[in-house]
Amino acid sequence: MHYADRLTDAIARVGNPCLVGLDPHLDALPEEFAVARNAEAPRAERARALADFCCAVIELVAGRVAAVKPQSAFFEVFGADGAAAWERVVARARAAGLLVIGDVKRGDIDSTAKAYARAFLEGSSAADRAHVCDAITINPFLGGDSVVPFLESCARAGAGVYVLVRTSNKDNKLCQDHGTPPLYERVADAVAAWGAPHVGERGWSSVGAVVGATHPRELAALRARMPRTPLLLPGYGAQGAGAAEIRGGFAADGRGALVNSSRGILFAHKSPQYAGQHWKDASRAALDAMVGEIRAALGAA
Amino acid sequence: MHYADRLTDAIARVGNPCLVGLDPHLDALPEEFAVARNAEAPRAERARALADFCCAVIELVAGRVAAVKPQSAFFEVFGADGAAAWERVVARARAAGLLVIGDVKRGDIDSTAKAYARAFLEGSSAADRAHVCDAITINPFLGGDSVVPFLESCARAGAGVYVLVRTSNKDNKLCQDHGTPPLYERVADAVAAWGAPHVGERGWSSVGAVVGATHPRELAALRARMPRTPLLLPGYGAQGAGAAEIRGGFAADGRGALVNSSRGILFAHKSPQYAGQHWKDASRAALDAMVGEIRAALGAA
Repeated sequence: MHYADRLTDAIARVGNPCLVGLDPHLDALPEEFAVARNAEAPRAERARALADFCCAVIELVAGRVAAVKPQSAFFEVFGADGAAAWERVVARARAAGLLVIGDVKRGDIDSTAKAYARAFLEGSSAADRAHVCDAITINPFLGGDSVVPFLESCARAGAGVYVLVRTSNKDNKLCQDHGTPPLYERVADAVAAWGAPHVGERGWSSVGAVVGATHPRELAALRARMPRTPLLLPGYGAQGAGAAEIRGGFAADGRGALVNSSRGILFAHKSPQYAGQHWKDASRAALDAMVGEIRAALGAA
Repeated sequence: MHYADRLTDAIARVGNPCLVGLDPHLDALPEEFAVARNAEAPRAERARALADFCCAVIELVAGRVAAVKPQSAFFEVFGADGAAAWERVVARARAAGLLVIGDVKRGDIDSTAKAYARAFLEGSSAADRAHVCDAITINPFLGGDSVVPFLESCARAGAGVYVLVRTSNKDNKLCQDHGTPPLYERVADAVAAWGAPHVGERGWSSVGAVVGATHPRELAALRARMPRTPLLLPGYGAQGAGAAEIRGGFAADGRGALVNSSRGILFAHKSPQYAGQHWKDASRAALDAMVGEIRAALGAA
């Protein structure tokens, strides 16, 4: 089944388009996982604590959101132990009924991109698929032939990709704003074209785009430019975008985007608003608040 | 010690600027490592064979070239087992006196880039550094603040980065040729600026650039645009560039670039030229031929 159809159904089931980013920043982990930041502890133990934390978050959010988005960098810090932790987290999320969007931002020449696509979307063998992602983020800097192998894997595996179009960081101009029209618009057009043959039964493509919700004025324009492209909107919460800013990323019927929050949910216990609460209670409350805000912005009941 | 200085000295020691890319394509591995492509075999065994092959190549080339460039995608295919294989290969290469350029092409927003930089250039702790790379490749699509954390790691660890400026794949135009002047020139200027505070005692920066040798006409122009930037020139051999094409990537004194060959060396036994030879003999001969060609093109003895 098309990734886009699975995603559309999952969002309908939970009744909100919130995405929880699993970005386990060592410095912000709750005290019970503190061994992860202890440079004197064995690496395997540190990686295990990182995965334990992510699995606890998965348990909190399963059934309440459609998908989670683990960030590979925080796992790679622990090398091979981190890779094992990554696999455990992805498998756990999938077993909990969540879609997994691997935030890996890979991109390379075609023969190499093929290996990345296989690694993250297909697995090394039929027996090695518990930890493959439903979708991943990819980087378009190398151009069209670097993207094709990912599209081929998507078709084979019923998977998806989100191509970076407009990122949520402050100093994103160097490449993305270059030229007239700016590069990000050109990439958006390419994404729409790549996605056209991958539109599922619900009307959405399995080829999505990452569009920073920190640029609200551009959102509606990009939404119009890529009418069948599911958007992944980072930047909600910690990076500064609010619920009103993300409305433009959605179609008129309130579909077509996922809104990501990572630190805002995972590390809610660090926020003055939830001071004194157990981290799980704080995260649960922060997710409830986010769901409420986004549903209100979309005009849902 | 600055990466750039270590690299300059290593190239002077071996007397050639050849770089061996460790891109272990499963389909092309010599028969003795065939278990790596057997989807029925345990993943750990497959990953071990991949690392065994790379370690055998390292043994062949140690002392004859300055550096090797393992490509992370081919390891990631085997998940956590692949990550363990990667660490073994990097550690072995370093122990053999080779510089290691991890071809990982990472790039993300600043807090995430920091984690990648730590993963590949610094290690998770003082005891976890046998497998860190001397340098890595990075992707500039996210802009300036996504590059800064890598530069900070370079300064702390005496490491280097090679920023993608112009890649060697055919269909590289979408982003890199966009605008007037084309984006790749703008990125080149940014690389020169990022690198200025990182120039070592031998006159070269630890902030390098990847410039596809398959575009010889652009090479000399980019060389002039980034006068202190060490270049990494992929595309030699299998991707079509010859020794004459790469001359423009070097300074007048024959310094300032590494020329990479991956498949041309690793899989020389597949080439009609070396038919019937053991793969090690074929690889050795192909490397000798490459060294001779490049030295001739540079006007060395």
